[in-house]
Amino acid sequence: MAERLIYVGLDVGGTTMKAAAVGDDGSPLSAPVVMDTNPERGQEAGLETMCETIRRAVAAARLTLADVTAIGVVTPGLMDIKAGLILDPPNLKPWKNVPVRDHVRAAFQKPTVYQNDANAAAYGEFWVGSGQAASSMVLFTLGTGVGGGIILGDAIVEGEHSHGGELGHLRIDLPDRGRLCGCGARGCLEAYASATNVVKRAREDLAAWRGPTKLKQFYSANDDEFTAKDVFDLAADGDALAVKVADDTAYYLALGACAVIATVDPEMIVFGGGMVAAGEWFRAAIETYVKRFGLPFPTRTVKIAFASLGSDAGFIGAAGCARLGMKGKA
Amino acid sequence: MAERLIYVGLDVGGTTMKAAAVGDDGSPLSAPVVMDTNPERGQEAGLETMCETIRRAVAAARLTLADVTAIGVVTPGLMDIKAGLILDPPNLKPWKNVPVRDHVRAAFQKPTVYQNDANAAAYGEFWVGSGQAASSMVLFTLGTGVGGGIILGDAIVEGEHSHGGELGHLRIDLPDRGRLCGCGARGCLEAYASATNVVKRAREDLAAWRGPTKLKQFYSANDDEFTAKDVFDLAADGDALAVKVADDTAYYLALGACAVIATVDPEMIVFGGGMVAAGEWFRAAIETYVKRFGLPFPTRTVKIAFASLGSDAGFIGAAGCARLGMKGKA
Repeated sequence: MAERLIYVGLDVGGTTMKAAAVGDDGSPLSAPVVMDTNPERGQEAGLETMCETIRRAVAAARLTLADVTAIGVVTPGLMDIKAGLILDPPNLKPWKNVPVRDHVRAAFQKPTVYQNDANAAAYGEFWVGSGQAASSMVLFTLGTGVGGGIILGDAIVEGEHSHGGELGHLRIDLPDRGRLCGCGARGCLEAYASATNVVKRAREDLAAWRGPTKLKQFYSANDDEFTAKDVFDLAADGDALAVKVADDTAYYLALGACAVIATVDPEMIVFGGGMVAAGEWFRAAIETYVKRFGLPFPTRTVKIAFASLGSDAGFIGAAGCARLGMKGKA
Repeated sequence: MAERLIYVGLDVGGTTMKAAAVGDDGSPLSAPVVMDTNPERGQEAGLETMCETIRRAVAAARLTLADVTAIGVVTPGLMDIKAGLILDPPNLKPWKNVPVRDHVRAAFQKPTVYQNDANAAAYGEFWVGSGQAASSMVLFTLGTGVGGGIILGDAIVEGEHSHGGELGHLRIDLPDRGRLCGCGARGCLEAYASATNVVKRAREDLAAWRGPTKLKQFYSANDDEFTAKDVFDLAADGDALAVKVADDTAYYLALGACAVIATVDPEMIVFGGGMVAAGEWFRAAIETYVKRFGLPFPTRTVKIAFASLGSDAGFIGAAGCARLGMKGKA
């Protein structure tokens, strides 16, 4: 009997970490195990929680460590991918210079790979998600921020300083005019298209809006609070202002996609994260703007799609990276 | 005696084509042979001129075809790199669907590779030019247009539609506001930083300039004509308006470099072409703007350099691509 190949993927985030054992075909062998990250308890505790999450994931799949072929761990940046180090990511404070890969490798005595979380999500979509038929793919992940990952022919573009695919910081307007980004610069895509900034733009548009819009009533009824999801839900319902805000978001994302086309010219560009709930018209709007503003030849056939793995892309991609380290996609 | 490895590189341009035999260490074995392209004589004549240029290059190095290991041919786009086809490039009219690679391969019965000219120039710089110590490198080529090439760990980013590294069409301003590019879109880097557009911006700046500038006298004395080189020469001389125009050019190029950092995060970004004659202050100006406007972590150490192979980068890179097809960079 051929040996069964099993990979454990661990996706470490600022709030929770999530792991599951994943088969050689990319299917999770159980629901993911979720534990709180609690970065404030320090990095020693964090490393132990990572190991415990991996142990529980193995148990949840009714396996033992002996069944595991390799382990993939992914975290947000800043990081040194080659060295297997978390440097000092803003959402894992106060962690600093955490030797994730070597710690996990030593704890389980298994081949262990380390990767950026957005790169891994991109690889997950490329391996078994929306991009599985593609030979190159770029993912934009839409959340509190805008992240990204670039996969070219089964290779992850990690970058020389572990900053490959930092697509939220593609600039879409000049730095003396653009919206202010969390990174301190102006004009970054993230300053327009992240969930936080969709809400900010919606508030600004609402202040200047003369026509009727349900957003106004919704806004007052919710103690002046609403989320990007609320905007996209109202847009799906055809509300004029919400459609405008969502359509502008598609335009900004398309400008990011055009920059990716002019640099790496991928077969497919995939959008994942909360806004995907907006549905097909939002995808089609991005595609329309890409065709209008991108290079004519590649945009004629580039595929624009939504991600299909949802929030599982991180741990599935982490497992995929472990597998890639052993043998490649095929 | 070990067999000597020799590659012939042919760089086909709209006006001339240029070829030389190149040794395994990247040094040309003779001065390049140059012949007129004369695209208007048709593609059959063009293919024959390519073969004749290759034959003369072999003879110029006092070699015979039996000495040649492999051949590399590079042309401007549009093209289909994988298929070895020139499609319908604007500066090789009226050529259309020219099977360059297969024709040259059949004519010489040698392994033949085909590549985009700017990608090949980037590979040349990476192989034996400014980037030879780098593990990843991006080239911006400054001429009539702005081209580019991306090399990641010895792989050329060709793109799915042969449009990898079309860096002149990175957008640096919004499409409803930016300068009009030759490609029909607005806001492309090329619409600001190509030689043609440096001249256009200089004319505009001159029309609005109140202070003294030698550019004004120079302009009138030359029948209202000047070139980008004239602007950069006057800038090197410290002329106030010329310095402004050149410094703005550095700013625009830096914004292109920032986009490349946020996508592929290379170890080194190299600028080649006419403007390089502007000298170190121009390189330093690009670097300053990259550090000011790019992602803080990678821009701390990314290397900004001028190209070193000049107009030989094309045929040397073509030979390098032939060699890469046989064995890789090492």
